[in-house]
Amino acid sequence: MNSVRTDAAEATDLVPGLRAVLLTGDSARLAALLADLRPQALLGVWYELEAEERERVLSALPPEPAAELLSNLSSEEQPEILESMASLQVAEMLEELSPDDLADTLQALEAYDPERSREVRGFLDPATLAVADALTGYDEEEAGGLMTPEFISVRATMTAAQVLTFLRRAAPDAETIYYLYVVDADQRLKGVLSLRQLIVSPPEARVQEMMSPDIISIRTDTDQEEVARIMADYDLSVLPVLDDDDRLVGIITVDDVLDVVTEEATEDIHRMGGAPIDIDYVRANPFLLFRKRASWLVLLVVSMTLTFNVINHYEHILAEVVILAAFIPLLIGTGGNVGAQVATLVVRALATRELELRDYFRVLWKELKTGMLLGLAFGLFMTGYVFFFQSEPRIAVALGITMVLIALSANLVGASLPFLFRRLGIDPALTSSPGITTVMDVLGLLIYFRVVIWVLGPLLTGEAAPAP
Amino acid sequence: MNSVRTDAAEATDLVPGLRAVLLTGDSARLAALLADLRPQALLGVWYELEAEERERVLSALPPEPAAELLSNLSSEEQPEILESMASLQVAEMLEELSPDDLADTLQALEAYDPERSREVRGFLDPATLAVADALTGYDEEEAGGLMTPEFISVRATMTAAQVLTFLRRAAPDAETIYYLYVVDADQRLKGVLSLRQLIVSPPEARVQEMMSPDIISIRTDTDQEEVARIMADYDLSVLPVLDDDDRLVGIITVDDVLDVVTEEATEDIHRMGGAPIDIDYVRANPFLLFRKRASWLVLLVVSMTLTFNVINHYEHILAEVVILAAFIPLLIGTGGNVGAQVATLVVRALATRELELRDYFRVLWKELKTGMLLGLAFGLFMTGYVFFFQSEPRIAVALGITMVLIALSANLVGASLPFLFRRLGIDPALTSSPGITTVMDVLGLLIYFRVVIWVLGPLLTGEAAPAP
Repeated sequence: MNSVRTDAAEATDLVPGLRAVLLTGDSARLAALLADLRPQALLGVWYELEAEERERVLSALPPEPAAELLSNLSSEEQPEILESMASLQVAEMLEELSPDDLADTLQALEAYDPERSREVRGFLDPATLAVADALTGYDEEEAGGLMTPEFISVRATMTAAQVLTFLRRAAPDAETIYYLYVVDADQRLKGVLSLRQLIVSPPEARVQEMMSPDIISIRTDTDQEEVARIMADYDLSVLPVLDDDDRLVGIITVDDVLDVVTEEATEDIHRMGGAPIDIDYVRANPFLLFRKRASWLVLLVVSMTLTFNVINHYEHILAEVVILAAFIPLLIGTGGNVGAQVATLVVRALATRELELRDYFRVLWKELKTGMLLGLAFGLFMTGYVFFFQSEPRIAVALGITMVLIALSANLVGASLPFLFRRLGIDPALTSSPGITTVMDVLGLLIYFRVVIWVLGPLLTGEAAPAP
Repeated sequence: MNSVRTDAAEATDLVPGLRAVLLTGDSARLAALLADLRPQALLGVWYELEAEERERVLSALPPEPAAELLSNLSSEEQPEILESMASLQVAEMLEELSPDDLADTLQALEAYDPERSREVRGFLDPATLAVADALTGYDEEEAGGLMTPEFISVRATMTAAQVLTFLRRAAPDAETIYYLYVVDADQRLKGVLSLRQLIVSPPEARVQEMMSPDIISIRTDTDQEEVARIMADYDLSVLPVLDDDDRLVGIITVDDVLDVVTEEATEDIHRMGGAPIDIDYVRANPFLLFRKRASWLVLLVVSMTLTFNVINHYEHILAEVVILAAFIPLLIGTGGNVGAQVATLVVRALATRELELRDYFRVLWKELKTGMLLGLAFGLFMTGYVFFFQSEPRIAVALGITMVLIALSANLVGASLPFLFRRLGIDPALTSSPGITTVMDVLGLLIYFRVVIWVLGPLLTGEAAPAP
């Protein structure tokens, strides 16, 4: 019996031994060593190896573990590594993949090297190929791209005994036998029968008596985030997928969805942090990272030049009261932090569907109040802090008022932008902490100088008295 | 057959109708209306109702859907709503809960009202109570708190036919019957038998011939994040939980883990955004939000006052060349954005275990190169931009050099802090975008003024020539 160790640590331990065996060139010893590795440990080792070592490891693996390893690689890595293998060997390995993984891998190979793809397809079993091809063309991020066609369907008129006999034959090829789908002659879904129900029923019971006609199903074009949410909300372990004619075309199992939830969380976290980068960070080289990151940062830097224009415009005020410049980072930085904080809360609540578009005014009202509280607290702090360093009470008051207005507006901007993005059909996570910070830098400076002119106007030679 | 609609929208549609029925006081019509609602729609309606309406809805529900609803409420909401019901009715409802949910609810009730808890316990079946109490005491965020003791265990010497007969009797009480655990006389786990294997085996086959002895298991104190990772990595739908003596004490099913993954992602996203707040945003009122958010913001505001001290210290430089103040937000803002971006990538890779502590120097080396590229790109932009507004080339050069150094150091700080936090046993997500921004504001200003003195020294009356 295995208890689980941390696979990454395990993998590192294994690499020197594996290298030693690779150096000897003893293929029997290599095969024996690889046979002892669990899939996840093998994947851990994989990423520590050089390209040439990877080719030799993959060639030494039997088709089944090789296929398992392959299915864990990204669609960029797959074709690269397949290039080094004979087409027949590739085909043997691909035969072991589940239809959804096979469809993905064939698509990746086709895009990378069409000639090679044709050759490999020639070696594949036509039946396998037909099933995989039926899956091609669905969006990878929708239910159609997640589902497998390897479900078990039965007819309503069958008896429990007949279903059990059928199951003994069909079980090896199915993704799950724990839920059997009842379909009519047109493949339309009529009900679901759990193996649990089947086991506790008498042998002569009919499927139509045992099945549950109340099924939650989705369409092939349902977004994968929605799939994950439905499975979590209804505590489902399998979800049937229907085409536009209500025909059952596939099922999605919860373990596939577990990966989706993690991927979607990564995407959201990257977007929120101003790094909306669809690459594997660990594998990306500095040039790729630079290209991907810079394209986003440039947008922020260019927007940020607005801060220069604002300050440049009010330069005469700073020239008169230089100390005012010293408060700029504190004021606009706090605005950015307040805004990023509330945006984070709102973006996540929108992503998990705790909030919907129609909740906007409720949120705005709540954040107006919260923003007033935050503004008053930080405004009082600011006035006290400034007065301590600067005996001129007018400056202290101006700074306090600025802080109130910045915190309040940051709170409202941070709460509103994610809703605006959702309304425009953009992922709210793209509001991003850096995005909010940039907006609040510009807005904060405008507020600051307007307040300063208003409160200190009479003291500034270049400014008239404030408007009434 | 149901297709799934967006439940939130559905819930809103239902509220007026429900309110109308509540007003009539017709309990039969209320019961009929509620019987038609699916659990998730009911939960959606729930949050739209007033406290008094909730009490009436809960009382009108049969024990089973009432229990389902209750298990979806938070441990703060549960005892509040139970207060309004008779203890016998509460007990009837609690009997329907799974043992892990019952344990959680009883703990919540005990903390809220010990007197009431004693009364309700008096009405509960002693056997139910014993199972639940065995679960109490495990940390809610560990495997022990997630598991249910309702697994099915069999002996190695049983035949397939015996197991099937046993299953028919035991199935109704088990969380899953799709995996049967083979234990010895001391409850030590010896193997696992899938119902799939059982179905395809002849009736006289022995469990020991059919079972797989190679089992991945975890301990009661395994962290829930680790549990989720193991299930995802190994594509498991059930995971057995052992105590310190290797005895099987429970199982965890993948649908419970799906919620964990979403919760953990929310926690990480909140922390990254500077909002490490363990409250339900949608339900929190402004005062609670203020209290929770301010405690974190105050830390940032106080740290941010360092920026005032730095600028105040170099005030004489700004007094001489006022335009230098106008570049401050652009420089330090870009530092914050670069730092937040890389920190986001590193924090997420640490969370998903793509990166481990030992990868630090590899990451640092990579980010040194990426940071140089970003620094040079933004430095060149900055020099050009400044030269366009300011004919003095020395200022343009000083700003360019500052930008290079700020972008580079932001990249190194953003890549290093998450590793430092992990090393100190703190969640790397607490580095947070606002935290990095604040660090880079202070560091950026220090770099800026040092570079300005170095490059412009001879032009500044108050400063000596730069050190050699």
